[in-house]
Amino acid sequence: MSELAGDLVAMSRHVESAISRASEALLTQNVDLAQAVIADDSKLDDLEETVDERCVLLIAQQQPVGLDLRTIIASLRISASLERMGDLAQHIAEAARRAYPESAIPADHREIVEGMTVAAKKAATEIMDLLETRDLNVAAGIVADDDDLDQLHARAYKTLLGSEYTGSTQETLDISLLARYFERFGDHAVAVSRRIVYLVTGDHTGDRARI
Amino acid sequence: MSELAGDLVAMSRHVESAISRASEALLTQNVDLAQAVIADDSKLDDLEETVDERCVLLIAQQQPVGLDLRTIIASLRISASLERMGDLAQHIAEAARRAYPESAIPADHREIVEGMTVAAKKAATEIMDLLETRDLNVAAGIVADDDDLDQLHARAYKTLLGSEYTGSTQETLDISLLARYFERFGDHAVAVSRRIVYLVTGDHTGDRARI
Repeated sequence: MSELAGDLVAMSRHVESAISRASEALLTQNVDLAQAVIADDSKLDDLEETVDERCVLLIAQQQPVGLDLRTIIASLRISASLERMGDLAQHIAEAARRAYPESAIPADHREIVEGMTVAAKKAATEIMDLLETRDLNVAAGIVADDDDLDQLHARAYKTLLGSEYTGSTQETLDISLLARYFERFGDHAVAVSRRIVYLVTGDHTGDRARI
Repeated sequence: MSELAGDLVAMSRHVESAISRASEALLTQNVDLAQAVIADDSKLDDLEETVDERCVLLIAQQQPVGLDLRTIIASLRISASLERMGDLAQHIAEAARRAYPESAIPADHREIVEGMTVAAKKAATEIMDLLETRDLNVAAGIVADDDDLDQLHARAYKTLLGSEYTGSTQETLDISLLARYFERFGDHAVAVSRRIVYLVTGDHTGDRARI
């Protein structure tokens, strides 16, 4: 079971690195960094496979019940969310790479996207902390980050549809998808956080709001 | 275990109904139908919870190994994908509702979106069949539908960026997201299909390409 916890921490570290580097690649038109994020995603997929296999083996060999069993099932869900967060970081890196040497961010969305990268990186760091320390105070921060991402997502679309927006269709397409990737990243972060809180406290409240 | 299989069939029926009605709502500006799809999504969430609880109970009470255990783990993954397919149908219905009484589809994307609804509905019907019959011939059809959805997704973006495109920013935003919802729907359909094939044949090949 401790190896399982270690695998999840390793996955969360990978996600944190991926979203940090994808954010920088997006904000600075760094195509090499974008490429590295895209190339590294398969490592996260490997980690997810390791977690899945470990869960099946743990169940088969130890026939767990109660909290151990629920921990294993939750771990499967957490690994799926972390893997998906890595995919979203990869999509952000792909947007940066496609636009290179231009920026994928319309000029009037710069501040919004910067805010999104800050909130997403913070959520990823907090998930790493939550998995390592099980300090439930961290969970509230993740929910706040997701709220920030939701608000920035709404602002991004509102800015798009405002009378002053003059972006090209390519820019509209880019920001439509980028805003959604960040918003989904936040949803998955909250889902992971809720599952950990549930394991630690036994409180399933709010789990229905999971993604 | 047979109840578990029955739950998944029930979920797949719900998804098929949701994508069919969401597609019709989108193509015919039927806001009542869109509303019904949105309201019904919580039933699918309930079904997912039922599957999850059944899986935990099955493991705790029967301490399964081998194929039974792998079937239970795969069922958890399949229920998560089906729940997500329902969410995507809901998002499509929300796009139809938001645009009402206008259409959410830019005029020059009509044929592409019609093609997407056909492929998505076909994939949903085939998943229902695959879960009911375990006839692996159906799986090839689901992969073909996903290929269609990928191609239509690419065509939608190509049309957006073509020199003849004259849609508004709202239309660009709508079609950017709609194309992505359908494309993701296809990805999840293939993921479900691969897991069933794996269970039936024991062949894990191609599973790494899962979402």
